[in-house]
Amino acid sequence: MVKSISIGLLGLGTVGSGVVQIVERHQDKLMHQIGCPVEVTKIVVKNLDKKRDIDIDPAKLTTDPNEVIENPNIDIVVEVMGGIEETRNYVIKALRNKKHVVTANKDLMAVYGAELLQIAAENGCDLFFEASVAGGIPIIRSLVEGLASDRILKLMGIVNGTTNYILTKMTEEGRAYEEVLKEAQALGYAEADPTSDVEGLDAARKMAILATLGFSMLIDLDDVKVTGISNITEEDLEYCKRLGYTMKLIGIASRDEQDKVEVSVQPTLLPNSHPLASVNDVFNAVYVYGEAVGETMFYGPGAGRLPTATAVVSDVVEVMKNMRLGVNGNRFAAPQFTKQLKSDEEIYSKYFLRIHVKDQAGAFAAITSLFADYNVSFEKILQLPLKDSDLAEIVIITHQASKKAYDEIMKKLNSLDVVYEVKSSYRVEGEEVL
Amino acid sequence: MVKSISIGLLGLGTVGSGVVQIVERHQDKLMHQIGCPVEVTKIVVKNLDKKRDIDIDPAKLTTDPNEVIENPNIDIVVEVMGGIEETRNYVIKALRNKKHVVTANKDLMAVYGAELLQIAAENGCDLFFEASVAGGIPIIRSLVEGLASDRILKLMGIVNGTTNYILTKMTEEGRAYEEVLKEAQALGYAEADPTSDVEGLDAARKMAILATLGFSMLIDLDDVKVTGISNITEEDLEYCKRLGYTMKLIGIASRDEQDKVEVSVQPTLLPNSHPLASVNDVFNAVYVYGEAVGETMFYGPGAGRLPTATAVVSDVVEVMKNMRLGVNGNRFAAPQFTKQLKSDEEIYSKYFLRIHVKDQAGAFAAITSLFADYNVSFEKILQLPLKDSDLAEIVIITHQASKKAYDEIMKKLNSLDVVYEVKSSYRVEGEEVL
Repeated sequence: MVKSISIGLLGLGTVGSGVVQIVERHQDKLMHQIGCPVEVTKIVVKNLDKKRDIDIDPAKLTTDPNEVIENPNIDIVVEVMGGIEETRNYVIKALRNKKHVVTANKDLMAVYGAELLQIAAENGCDLFFEASVAGGIPIIRSLVEGLASDRILKLMGIVNGTTNYILTKMTEEGRAYEEVLKEAQALGYAEADPTSDVEGLDAARKMAILATLGFSMLIDLDDVKVTGISNITEEDLEYCKRLGYTMKLIGIASRDEQDKVEVSVQPTLLPNSHPLASVNDVFNAVYVYGEAVGETMFYGPGAGRLPTATAVVSDVVEVMKNMRLGVNGNRFAAPQFTKQLKSDEEIYSKYFLRIHVKDQAGAFAAITSLFADYNVSFEKILQLPLKDSDLAEIVIITHQASKKAYDEIMKKLNSLDVVYEVKSSYRVEGEEVL
Repeated sequence: MVKSISIGLLGLGTVGSGVVQIVERHQDKLMHQIGCPVEVTKIVVKNLDKKRDIDIDPAKLTTDPNEVIENPNIDIVVEVMGGIEETRNYVIKALRNKKHVVTANKDLMAVYGAELLQIAAENGCDLFFEASVAGGIPIIRSLVEGLASDRILKLMGIVNGTTNYILTKMTEEGRAYEEVLKEAQALGYAEADPTSDVEGLDAARKMAILATLGFSMLIDLDDVKVTGISNITEEDLEYCKRLGYTMKLIGIASRDEQDKVEVSVQPTLLPNSHPLASVNDVFNAVYVYGEAVGETMFYGPGAGRLPTATAVVSDVVEVMKNMRLGVNGNRFAAPQFTKQLKSDEEIYSKYFLRIHVKDQAGAFAAITSLFADYNVSFEKILQLPLKDSDLAEIVIITHQASKKAYDEIMKKLNSLDVVYEVKSSYRVEGEEVL
């Protein structure tokens, strides 16, 4: 047991550089755990001459992916290049060449996870992806192993740091979405094209991965209903505060007693006392409700070079331990359940609704009567005259309503004479757990 | 692979009953993961005739521990009877009989953990103890596996639900310690003799276990310096609030660059923005600061029948997976480092100090000059006259000071002419991470 273990990297961006750093810096601890040295021996990059902020022996760099995935001396392929289609081909090739794969790629895993895990299993290889969801937080391990004996009923995640940063600043400083987005871009917390983050797609990918593991059921990205944060206004957040709520972009995955599930991502009001409500700035957190364990939460950095690289290298450690014991390819069980999605009639939640109505007798009555037609009642109501206007603003928090009933109410609201404009509507979670 | 796996239980109290329930209720999920049925076949109890709140086949009950630990048909022994000396003997016997052991017993693991892990390793057996720290939170797994590649620099834990409940109620409702303790006893959150909880001993045991794993260094219970919560007053908590802090009973384990460590448990002021500050009631949480990952936190129920049983059965699942693969006895590496404890000169923190002084010219100057002699400066100061008295109250938050310097200041303070009484003194953590 003196042979050293060889890692090949696909990609040397932020996370890849972090992996190189951690493998070097924590070599003692790694050796202590696995009993032999471990080294990054080959790194696939796009540009050999690019200036990098870490020292790398140029002989390790190559532009040819086959020097990693076809290389008989490489034991573990770490995929941190991103992308989907081309990357999928590399990963498949690596697995067929009996190389274990560790990836930080949520896009890849959300789309091709099931296929890749299948190929890994057929080849007796590990395919680990802890870093693909919530960066440095060991949430996949906790779901799959730490809560192995429990029946997970609900997952709620703040799994996108960019949007959490934006909402935190908007809430704390009363500033507008566009302004805070620009600041986030300047700070490097948001990309030049922020669509994937702010429209909730990035969070949706992570929720598909978490729901698949948590419910042991193959959830496709298309099953996740998504609404982003770009329409949230300062006024909405002001009302949140007044009513004792905090607005977060929340990924929700829940299942009922018949194992029917709902997976969605949307701006959501949480009571200030909810554990997720105080998760601020770029931090991520995943709240897990298990039938037996009750409420748990896992909190930490959702991105960043070293946090993400920690998750990658911790996966590598597990691959190496498995290699030593000769038991790779056994971590993930195939899904236990066939997917059943809840219909809109089976998805229940509370809602926050802000509308502008004509400030006249009967306006409020017309609205309450519409809700009453669908048996939806109110938990909280605010009505305020709007300055310099003949309109009034009504803010409502409903009791539990089915999505179907609520959507129909929304449609009809717009055609009520007394309604001038529906300004905003958000889901409300967290007072009752399920 | 159709043979069923047999569990023998030592103890059928709260957690033991939960284990029986979860094994039955989640049998489908367990079978899916391990590929064969699992059953609790034998249970050691003190009293065969005791009325219990779960249905148990009386034929499974026995008062003779040997029917479990010497039973050739039993694969896994789950120890949930509590106690230390006698229990240690049973666990050793079970391991020598090649039975894997899962325990929820922090007292046992804090005192004999190293010895028992050694015996387990010698016998190729698993000895898992996730439930021994922070109940339903998979913190041991997260430290040992999820953060395997990182270097843990600091652990801070709210690891005792009773004291967290008491401090939460005292803080929220401005009530006195004795009164809230009585309420906690009536609610079953505190025991008739609450000493082990309120004096911090229970937390100390858990911190010894966490520090041993987090720092890969054998920390003895005697290495943990402990102060409990029984002297905390409403006045102290009122000042906490005013100054933007929350008081918690915090277990701290930290290590410096030379791998010297400090492990302690004491009432501690945390800034309200600290992730641990909003962990309330009987909930537990462990904050982990890793060199690479930065700040993470693991939150959940610290006790209770089903949460604790979830942790136990999740450990059982891992034992069974290992049995299937034939790789038991490989989870825990022996400690990497020899223990080195920090001296009082090397332990740094901020302090909160409340003193009553004679309300006369020069009083404050005498105090500041004493602190200045030791190079300890102040971050915040409040001075208020005391009603109906010729005394004044001074509340100080210091900057970082060594424990040695601070302890010497404390001694001299009492002999200063102007000081009437030192009312209270607490550690302050959390603005700077390390």
